[in-house]
Amino acid sequence: MDLFAKTVQKIKEPDKEIMNKTRMHIDNLVKPIGSLGTLEEIAIKISGITGKVHNELNKKAVILMASDNGIYEEGVSCSPQEVTAIQTLNFTKGITGINVLSDIEKNDLFIVDIGIKSNIKSSKIINKKIRYGTSNFAKGSAMSRDEAIKSIEIGIEIAEDLINKGYNILGTGEMGIGNTSTSSAIVMAFMECKSSAAVGRGAGLTKEGYINKVKAIEKGLKINMPEKDDPIDVLSKVGGFEIGGLAGCYLAAAANNTPIVIDGFISAAAALVSYKINRLTKEYMISSHCSREPGYSLILENIGLEPMLNLNMRLGEGTGCPLAFNIIENALAITNKMATFEQAQIDSDKLIDIRDEN
Amino acid sequence: MDLFAKTVQKIKEPDKEIMNKTRMHIDNLVKPIGSLGTLEEIAIKISGITGKVHNELNKKAVILMASDNGIYEEGVSCSPQEVTAIQTLNFTKGITGINVLSDIEKNDLFIVDIGIKSNIKSSKIINKKIRYGTSNFAKGSAMSRDEAIKSIEIGIEIAEDLINKGYNILGTGEMGIGNTSTSSAIVMAFMECKSSAAVGRGAGLTKEGYINKVKAIEKGLKINMPEKDDPIDVLSKVGGFEIGGLAGCYLAAAANNTPIVIDGFISAAAALVSYKINRLTKEYMISSHCSREPGYSLILENIGLEPMLNLNMRLGEGTGCPLAFNIIENALAITNKMATFEQAQIDSDKLIDIRDEN
Repeated sequence: MDLFAKTVQKIKEPDKEIMNKTRMHIDNLVKPIGSLGTLEEIAIKISGITGKVHNELNKKAVILMASDNGIYEEGVSCSPQEVTAIQTLNFTKGITGINVLSDIEKNDLFIVDIGIKSNIKSSKIINKKIRYGTSNFAKGSAMSRDEAIKSIEIGIEIAEDLINKGYNILGTGEMGIGNTSTSSAIVMAFMECKSSAAVGRGAGLTKEGYINKVKAIEKGLKINMPEKDDPIDVLSKVGGFEIGGLAGCYLAAAANNTPIVIDGFISAAAALVSYKINRLTKEYMISSHCSREPGYSLILENIGLEPMLNLNMRLGEGTGCPLAFNIIENALAITNKMATFEQAQIDSDKLIDIRDEN
Repeated sequence: MDLFAKTVQKIKEPDKEIMNKTRMHIDNLVKPIGSLGTLEEIAIKISGITGKVHNELNKKAVILMASDNGIYEEGVSCSPQEVTAIQTLNFTKGITGINVLSDIEKNDLFIVDIGIKSNIKSSKIINKKIRYGTSNFAKGSAMSRDEAIKSIEIGIEIAEDLINKGYNILGTGEMGIGNTSTSSAIVMAFMECKSSAAVGRGAGLTKEGYINKVKAIEKGLKINMPEKDDPIDVLSKVGGFEIGGLAGCYLAAAANNTPIVIDGFISAAAALVSYKINRLTKEYMISSHCSREPGYSLILENIGLEPMLNLNMRLGEGTGCPLAFNIIENALAITNKMATFEQAQIDSDKLIDIRDEN
């Protein structure tokens, strides 16, 4: 059996018994029941993933997949295509948004070239180039079915390698000029929704640019007719290599009992692909922030997740992940360090008197 | 002139010129303009507060004001009143929610007894007790006008002392059984809204308990008739000592060019009192999470702020502040550490070729 099929088959339900145990423990902590809201839910979710009530994030990684998107040809982006390569090189220099946030949170960053349109000389980039960008999906299939599976398997290999090295939480990031168009096409293919619900202005399109972007996406969907019940068909016809790669990361995280954080719209589109491949992947996903791209909320509703951060961000690069890692660390510390009511029993001599008069 | 009036008078507009400089700097960083959303806005806001483009959080403090509320007598809470004292003692032991989150974020915690109904022996509690809890506002004024001003001045003194000691961001927390009722009364007094919009279930009331709580608050408002254009009148008639104390912290932060973080509903009610005293306080406030108490959103809309975190929390204690401090640190790091487009100029030899074929 190939790596893709083996990984999908390996994904199991989280451990409900441990989740119940964790909930019971949290309900005994010195606070009103449920008053720490999502922090409690995250701690419970992660206990189900790892099979342990008490968890810590020892090693944190953001995997950043970079690729070019053939749809760029249609004029869907206001940035030059070279920015994919230039910004990927910037990631290696530690000067971009994701670098700065990763430094604060002390997570590692792994940069993968899975299909950039140029060759970049840097020992800090993992070279897994499938080819020099996808084909223009407004004119035909973005990639072959084999390439789609290959992109997923690259993601699986990278994520599994990191998990084997001791990383116990992963985050997903991406770089690829044109990939909001790709992501919108994926959303429209799976959900059969209107373009107004799934297409946004990306990095800052004008109204005319937006209309043109919608046309290109609609043309691509009409020409390719992706089959919504066949996620590999959707990915290959209107997807991107970076999205396939991240979908592989979600599958590998789920198959290896590791929580994985969704960043923005493109990262969510990849989460959707993995969710359509195996619904159980959802149990391993934690969403970070609510992207300003309209398709993002559609995806999260479809999967059944709620973002924790409301920061009007739309940068990508995985920038939501370090912020989410911090919240998750707080959630786990609640479980590990707060006292139970029993442990907190009061030293009554410290309270001299409880007055009755007011 | 007394401390209260002097502090209110000292509050100035933030430095708009520096804010513009900071925005120009941020717009030059290697990312699409505006793509880091609220992180950018926070960095700009703080630059206006401090008068410097580049800022760091060196020392962070959460001020936790604890007090009892006379309205407890009306059966508005599902917790015994002693919990105010017991939990305040727990704060000194490092075992509560706010302790655990403060440890992760490495902020200090200052616990103030501003009106607990018993005496607590602990060197870790700042004793500023005004008296043993407020009076029951369903039967008359919660406190005298002098006491209201005294509570505010206690907050001013504590906050100014910390700012003088080098703390450059403050957070607000509270403990006081019954104080969601007090906060709802404050919201209704200022906004003349219906109880359904301002009263929630607190730490977990039943439906009957909720109806009773609403009745007690409505009775208190009818008896006291607080004057909405006189914030001290509102605070003294239906407020709490902890709320007055925190209102003083907001005023002192604004008067001393220091950003201050709002936690949940009670902390927001205190922010509202300070905002009604001087609208400029808003420019120094940063909201953290969206509390589940209905009155919270009303307050934030009224002041014109938006919460950054969506975590369904309703614990109080200042627990939103450490989480917000982390986001703020990330926002400031963006300004301090990301490269500008100019600085990021590419080493062209690193990009071997930009392919044209696809």
